[in-house]
Amino acid sequence: MIHRSFGPLPMVFPHPVFVIGTYGPDGVANLATASWAGICCSRPPCLAVSLRSATHSHGSILRGKAFTISVVGADQVRAADFAGIYSGRDRDKFEELQLTPVRSTLVDAPYVDQAPLVLECALRHVHELGLHTQFVGEILDVKAEESTLNEKGLPCIDRVDPLIYASGDQSYYRVGDRVAAAFSVGRDPHDAK
Amino acid sequence: MIHRSFGPLPMVFPHPVFVIGTYGPDGVANLATASWAGICCSRPPCLAVSLRSATHSHGSILRGKAFTISVVGADQVRAADFAGIYSGRDRDKFEELQLTPVRSTLVDAPYVDQAPLVLECALRHVHELGLHTQFVGEILDVKAEESTLNEKGLPCIDRVDPLIYASGDQSYYRVGDRVAAAFSVGRDPHDAK
Repeated sequence: MIHRSFGPLPMVFPHPVFVIGTYGPDGVANLATASWAGICCSRPPCLAVSLRSATHSHGSILRGKAFTISVVGADQVRAADFAGIYSGRDRDKFEELQLTPVRSTLVDAPYVDQAPLVLECALRHVHELGLHTQFVGEILDVKAEESTLNEKGLPCIDRVDPLIYASGDQSYYRVGDRVAAAFSVGRDPHDAK
Repeated sequence: MIHRSFGPLPMVFPHPVFVIGTYGPDGVANLATASWAGICCSRPPCLAVSLRSATHSHGSILRGKAFTISVVGADQVRAADFAGIYSGRDRDKFEELQLTPVRSTLVDAPYVDQAPLVLECALRHVHELGLHTQFVGEILDVKAEESTLNEKGLPCIDRVDPLIYASGDQSYYRVGDRVAAAFSVGRDPHDAK
């Protein structure tokens, strides 16, 4: 195939959209939105999220040694975008978004009560990578809103309806159709060709 | 809202599906599929991918100090799944999948010629996190197949049609509808409520 080079860019498909919850120095619950993030270990379960040191949340994660991830639904896209545009130094984002902060009982950070999926993370590693600092948090609990559970009682991606961020056209998308079962559809190499 | 606790799990929505290209100790081009991954820095642009030390690709990344990411389309789901199920110790995955390895001119790793989007990464950091080792690679080039470019000449998520992996029901999904423009839809806090 003919590939065109775009040079060194932080571009890949897809990126997640995670709303990070922390307490500021004043104890005010704050939100930030990050897409440079993902699960990075199964045991202990860990999630990595990268923030610039200039952000308000950067200092808050270091101070509280904790953060939460609230995965919001596509119907909450304005809130996710708002939390990514403005700084917690200037705005009380929970209040302006009329969202309810819930104090985690496991870590020193708040999460969004209205979020369908929540992860509570204790800071384990801090990696300075350049413009961004990568925070690795151990996931102490995953919480899912009752209405997102399928018949097996597991959180279901189409009921959470999470956002996807696309570099390139800098837009949010939602998850579409199920394609196939993992660890199954490619089992036969002949079919996999 | 009523949230149900699931305990410590590596579960969040969405995960990406990245096909990792490396050379084995024998110089044979190999593939592996990973979802514990994501962009982790903008400058220098870096991507993190986590693998268990038991995998064939783990040693190959350390040896070659490089890896590639091939983002395959939803029509290539069987190949992505196959590359994630079997080990390069036992199978020549490029050959069995009838995919063409292209030798990167930037790093010591091959990528998939048939992939719509490719990243070539030089290994910069190795983080031992537990069951998984996190490899941070600096992205030296992003290559996109001509047919995936939009009218502005940028790679377009709906033309790449990347896979999403969902923990929970352990299935692959595709990207759905565009929801909104980022850094825009949430600009007004009144609208964002």
